[in-house]
Amino acid sequence: MNMMFSDLAHRLVGQEMFHVLDKAGVIERSGGKVYHLELGDPHLPPDPVISECIQNSLNNHQHHYVPSSGSLEYKNAICNLIKITQNIDLESKNIIAATANYLITNFLSITCNPSETVLVITPCFPSYLASAKMLNINVHEFPTTPDNGYIPNETLFDTIEQVKPKAIIVNSANNPTGAVYSKDFLLKLIDVAKKNNCWILSDETYSLIVYGDNFYSLLNSDYEKVVVLSSLSKSFSIAGYRMGYHVSKSDEFNSHSNKFLSTNISCSPSFIQLGCATYLNKNELVVKTVKHTKDHYKLICDELFSTNSWLKNNLKQPKASFYLFIPVNKNGNEFALNLINNDHVAVTPGKAFGKHFESYVRATICGPKSDVIEGIKILTSKL
Amino acid sequence: MNMMFSDLAHRLVGQEMFHVLDKAGVIERSGGKVYHLELGDPHLPPDPVISECIQNSLNNHQHHYVPSSGSLEYKNAICNLIKITQNIDLESKNIIAATANYLITNFLSITCNPSETVLVITPCFPSYLASAKMLNINVHEFPTTPDNGYIPNETLFDTIEQVKPKAIIVNSANNPTGAVYSKDFLLKLIDVAKKNNCWILSDETYSLIVYGDNFYSLLNSDYEKVVVLSSLSKSFSIAGYRMGYHVSKSDEFNSHSNKFLSTNISCSPSFIQLGCATYLNKNELVVKTVKHTKDHYKLICDELFSTNSWLKNNLKQPKASFYLFIPVNKNGNEFALNLINNDHVAVTPGKAFGKHFESYVRATICGPKSDVIEGIKILTSKL
Repeated sequence: MNMMFSDLAHRLVGQEMFHVLDKAGVIERSGGKVYHLELGDPHLPPDPVISECIQNSLNNHQHHYVPSSGSLEYKNAICNLIKITQNIDLESKNIIAATANYLITNFLSITCNPSETVLVITPCFPSYLASAKMLNINVHEFPTTPDNGYIPNETLFDTIEQVKPKAIIVNSANNPTGAVYSKDFLLKLIDVAKKNNCWILSDETYSLIVYGDNFYSLLNSDYEKVVVLSSLSKSFSIAGYRMGYHVSKSDEFNSHSNKFLSTNISCSPSFIQLGCATYLNKNELVVKTVKHTKDHYKLICDELFSTNSWLKNNLKQPKASFYLFIPVNKNGNEFALNLINNDHVAVTPGKAFGKHFESYVRATICGPKSDVIEGIKILTSKL
Repeated sequence: MNMMFSDLAHRLVGQEMFHVLDKAGVIERSGGKVYHLELGDPHLPPDPVISECIQNSLNNHQHHYVPSSGSLEYKNAICNLIKITQNIDLESKNIIAATANYLITNFLSITCNPSETVLVITPCFPSYLASAKMLNINVHEFPTTPDNGYIPNETLFDTIEQVKPKAIIVNSANNPTGAVYSKDFLLKLIDVAKKNNCWILSDETYSLIVYGDNFYSLLNSDYEKVVVLSSLSKSFSIAGYRMGYHVSKSDEFNSHSNKFLSTNISCSPSFIQLGCATYLNKNELVVKTVKHTKDHYKLICDELFSTNSWLKNNLKQPKASFYLFIPVNKNGNEFALNLINNDHVAVTPGKAFGKHFESYVRATICGPKSDVIEGIKILTSKL
């Protein structure tokens, strides 16, 4: 039978790490033990108070629809979170609630036509590439290198002038490299973007997992075409809750976003929004959790780099987030495939993070500590 | 500033009922009482055991990612639900988990290219139209009429032969009319669809809220291009949980679906899936809840039609679901606007359900009983 799928169907690639998760599932269901280094899925137990807040929200019969753009309680709580952690003032009308991954597709859909160009600094979170490809948007990959700590060099600005992309995606603190961009760099980027009338998506999902004190948020920018994306998944260890948000100072952008969400998902789960809202208003707890999370990953990082001699000699310790982007000096797909098949260590091949990174793999260090140490040990023993 | 949004952004219309909800929110925040007849948002309290199952799932630390296509536990539980309520055997690989509304966009994206045609029987659930418009897919609206109980007449089949749509969306039991299509009609539809190589999306969200015994499910069909959509929102009164699913017997379709979800949302909330799975395996409870839900709406329907003389004289009692599709013999947009502004009764204008239905409004009867009776009384007093 001729199924006659759409062209879009044939452009779908998905997220490589979820394909790896599917492979790991097969091994686990046949009784094997897998070292999960493929997904940024925090193993740290969430603050039990978050779960209590969600349960209260369930007990209070919060099982109804809420507005497509998010419940007012959640939006206000996100404003509060940003105030207490970054000291930036926002209003609820600036906030849109949804799964952060979906807000990437939302941003690209609203800003770029098919065949227009989005400039992406690579290596990058695979969904930027997968979503652009699905939407038939051209991707201009601007690669960074480990020599420079994965900070884009000045030719980025010339490239923007030449390519004149419709949109730029920037991700500091970075997944998968842990790079943190300076305030000077980001201000220059905004300048060049403004001059070329580009949209900017600033993915700041890891803004609260930065080990130094040099993080600069584009929430500080007044450029109307900046959209900041973030999520509760990583800082609060609740990836499975699927709660994120974006911040935009453009009422027009938010109105399109609202209609995009209304068309496609109606709204995000109400009781999760309302439970998270209650939690995020507990200022002392939130500040404590955020600090605890950051300290936890810093410790694991320190331990890895002081005990694993391959890492110590070959990689710089990441300045943020919980990933290691590892050059394997051979085809990363094959390396990753052998690693999961032979050694049950699940990692994500580098190609998913950009076309220049075929000889890399990404390993996450947010799983159970002993699994991380052992999994990385097995991985580096192959190098 | 020239914001330069995409063409897609300008095609977004959202769901009219959520725009009405936003208007209602403004009235409520300034202290007004609103009769909510706009959203299909069940007021019936969910079985407390569902909420317990979700809470157990939270307590068991189900806060991680699960596969993009859904957790195996949830998929198996959906197979069980279908077995005990419809006596149809399926396998977990036939099931994909996500918010049902999103699975409409998923279906259209995977099957239809821009400028290809989807045939939609109207009046219909507004998201079919909004999603197709967003994707730049042509919509051929095939209208039905109240004289025939909103059952499509035989010219539908000629229209399919002529239009040769890439896909057809069919929704029995119907929102907003409550129409239930016969087995003969549906088998003929499949025949004609097969002959013309059309995809079929069969939205069976209201399959368990049918007051007679004549419901026929396209889950019974072996035509590979049938995709059946459903949701837990209505039968289990948990609209805010956002848990739905689709069923397809095509591995290829499910593989595209999996990648679509992986690209866009990563996965649906894990602890909700796992909690619902536990609940759905409690066969006796599930059967009891489904019956209780159906009986509840039937009673409200009976009471409305026996006490409200306008309804008794002007409308046929719906055979399924919990909506009244009401001819107002004037512009439905203006009627609905006046009704919310002057009388605080929120209904959805008919135009959202198809271009031939400008002089209708849809009222839901799934809210608190006294609000429904009073809201419908106010509404019909204007006719």
